[in-house]
Amino acid sequence: MDTVALNQAIAALRKKGHSLVAGDDVGERHSVDFTAENALRPEAVLRPGSVREVAEILKVCNGLGQPVVVQGGMTGLAGGATPQAGELALSLERLTGIEELDEASMTISAQAGTPLQVLQEAAEQAGFLLPLDFGARGSCHIGGAIATNAGGNQVIRFGMTRNLVLGLEAVLADGTVISSMNKMLKNNAGYDLKQLFIGTEGTLGVITRCVLRLLPRLASTCTALCAVDSFPQAAKLLRELQSRLGGSVSAFELMWADYFHRVIDHGDSLRSPFAEGYPMYALIEAEGPDRQADEARFEAALGRALESGVIADAAIARSVSDRQSFWAIRDGVAEITAGLTPYASLDVSMDIGEMAGFVDEFDRELKKALPDAISLVFGHIGDNNLHLLVSTRRHRDLDTIFDIGYRLTGAHRGSVSAEHGIGVLKRGYLHYSRSPEELALMRRLKKALDPKDILNRGRVIPG
Amino acid sequence: MDTVALNQAIAALRKKGHSLVAGDDVGERHSVDFTAENALRPEAVLRPGSVREVAEILKVCNGLGQPVVVQGGMTGLAGGATPQAGELALSLERLTGIEELDEASMTISAQAGTPLQVLQEAAEQAGFLLPLDFGARGSCHIGGAIATNAGGNQVIRFGMTRNLVLGLEAVLADGTVISSMNKMLKNNAGYDLKQLFIGTEGTLGVITRCVLRLLPRLASTCTALCAVDSFPQAAKLLRELQSRLGGSVSAFELMWADYFHRVIDHGDSLRSPFAEGYPMYALIEAEGPDRQADEARFEAALGRALESGVIADAAIARSVSDRQSFWAIRDGVAEITAGLTPYASLDVSMDIGEMAGFVDEFDRELKKALPDAISLVFGHIGDNNLHLLVSTRRHRDLDTIFDIGYRLTGAHRGSVSAEHGIGVLKRGYLHYSRSPEELALMRRLKKALDPKDILNRGRVIPG
Repeated sequence: MDTVALNQAIAALRKKGHSLVAGDDVGERHSVDFTAENALRPEAVLRPGSVREVAEILKVCNGLGQPVVVQGGMTGLAGGATPQAGELALSLERLTGIEELDEASMTISAQAGTPLQVLQEAAEQAGFLLPLDFGARGSCHIGGAIATNAGGNQVIRFGMTRNLVLGLEAVLADGTVISSMNKMLKNNAGYDLKQLFIGTEGTLGVITRCVLRLLPRLASTCTALCAVDSFPQAAKLLRELQSRLGGSVSAFELMWADYFHRVIDHGDSLRSPFAEGYPMYALIEAEGPDRQADEARFEAALGRALESGVIADAAIARSVSDRQSFWAIRDGVAEITAGLTPYASLDVSMDIGEMAGFVDEFDRELKKALPDAISLVFGHIGDNNLHLLVSTRRHRDLDTIFDIGYRLTGAHRGSVSAEHGIGVLKRGYLHYSRSPEELALMRRLKKALDPKDILNRGRVIPG
Repeated sequence: MDTVALNQAIAALRKKGHSLVAGDDVGERHSVDFTAENALRPEAVLRPGSVREVAEILKVCNGLGQPVVVQGGMTGLAGGATPQAGELALSLERLTGIEELDEASMTISAQAGTPLQVLQEAAEQAGFLLPLDFGARGSCHIGGAIATNAGGNQVIRFGMTRNLVLGLEAVLADGTVISSMNKMLKNNAGYDLKQLFIGTEGTLGVITRCVLRLLPRLASTCTALCAVDSFPQAAKLLRELQSRLGGSVSAFELMWADYFHRVIDHGDSLRSPFAEGYPMYALIEAEGPDRQADEARFEAALGRALESGVIADAAIARSVSDRQSFWAIRDGVAEITAGLTPYASLDVSMDIGEMAGFVDEFDRELKKALPDAISLVFGHIGDNNLHLLVSTRRHRDLDTIFDIGYRLTGAHRGSVSAEHGIGVLKRGYLHYSRSPEELALMRRLKKALDPKDILNRGRVIPG
């Protein structure tokens, strides 16, 4: 650890009047993200109140080669914002607030530290939809969602965060402010520089502001929980619904029986709408512009799937509370994790055709290596995304679980991170999903934009 | 011109067995794109038949510092693929063909030289929609569409080409093959490298293969031609329809009266469905999953717009031939250009709120500078995109027209290229839309990926 650079940086920034908290005054929230792994207090925390201040801070740190960890809402699941030894933390929590909701352009502009939920609610109040949603909506920052290209429950219809970002402002490692606050759907005036900062987890620049696209709010939401007999039937159901509902499917969440029943058994208030148990369950949602017609079409599509035997049973939500109780089962993952700590959370993606084989092989290898392991599987299969929650309740087994899971993901030509990102926790597994040429190109980009490697050092790219 | 490097490159490539056409044997099609500007025959044309050959060619050229112009279907409108002095042309016309249509993943994979229309038809035959379409569909290559991030008529609903690209293979200037042929909707395994090659017009790498996302085919298409009294009314109509039709609006093409009537008057077969003339006309299309319900909703939405006075008159297409005749007016631009040669074609984008003022100011300044100029305006206003076709039929006036148009575009915080790209023709105007910091970052990227500046030298980034 280079304490000389650190002390110089702190002194220089104090002299320039930056508000800086150090030592014991640093709050707990700057130590660790949602993974609860590797907690380490940062040497000091900087909380800039303007993009100009962000630029000044980075210029000073870059001059001294002082590494900086960029922090948003600390809701990440890959250890990217967790401080490493010797790092200064740059928190964007004071860069907060909506700057404009432009109804004519159907855009919303905000500072990076604005929580997602604040944006969702502002959009809704103005009659629009911001189609980005996931569990951490209340505490995550929009800047972090963009930096990690967050996914969520509506990707099948609306895409990842990247697809919603029209404009961006970011600060490079050397303090250069790149302002590309575009509000237009079409803009081919040279390189689309904002792509450099989306999904690169703060390693190429610090996002400070953004413009997001809004969509018209939809009038109807149809929700159903379906019981299916096998993975191939589930995949067939997805394909049929996408065809019959013409692109209006906005969620297709598949839950394997182990997951489904553990959640149901755990919560007092949750129950299965089905009398029997089934191998898997699909939570399906479609949204459209016309309540009556949409509901009729949704029911007809499920009716045909039932008749043809693609689904074994189905329960359609008849009320908001029905809908909430179906989603409570899917979102119940948050309730059951406490009892499984420490556990390995895998967030992988692969072709739908590979999924059944992958899950089988994973279960087989897991049982062989760790006979008492519990493995719960669920996922957004329409987005190619599987989540696996695996636990022996022993910390020492985590690496074994990750090794098996990521190796098999690679063997099935999948991705070791579908939506959570790489951070520090998955860096060692990235080679399963990316070629040496791809990794070399990532290094070349990092070198070009951050030659002193001060931004989120040691994240994403394998050393 | 460095003829030493050129001759060495030609000799080295011949020795390695590459098929190479030089001198008078070079076909006309390698000289000029759709702009018909700056025709110059390339010194020689290379037509590799595999990605390995592309890699070998670039490695040789990079070693010698020999510049290469990348050529696809030669349908560009910015001079990007038109040879400059001393360049070798690298044509991808032999890298053609669909490699896979994966129904389960809803993806289509193809080589870069495959024409867009071939992909559209394959998707349709398999029951899918490839939502990318523009006039040059029959001759453009998909690689070129990706390299220029092409737009077209359906951007308002489905986005630009970028939004459809899931995977890409590209060759860097030094011959490194970057294969990221991903088929998954969610993949956050490190930097999304394909973004480097989308919309950068061949300056950072040569695209050789791609994976595109397919969507479910939609059952209904509703089309109408509406007469409106003013631009604010047209903008209001767009907003109302987007809200009432819940995101199913797939085209909103606005035509100013000068354009509309010139096209009608030009063609023997075209006629206006309206008895009177109006200040502007909107061609509107919505697509959905349910013919009967979609048509009823579409008619109801237009009925309300008529009652409330947002539109002055409307004609709904009752047959495929009605639909075709409405689109023939919009597509009639190709018919009238011959009589206006030479003309300036502007492809700009800006906030909808800026458009009316921009068109007024442009007309005023144009009339002052060139009193006999003809200016025809139309555009995809839902995508923020305006096209202006301006002519005095004198070549010497073109620069004056561009100067006025792009300066005013900058003043309205717009983009000097919405969808056609920058190429060589708009390089000198890029500064109206991008800041010095943005241009510097583009140069930094170019330097990192192509340090000898051999790929499409002198395109996009101002010198």
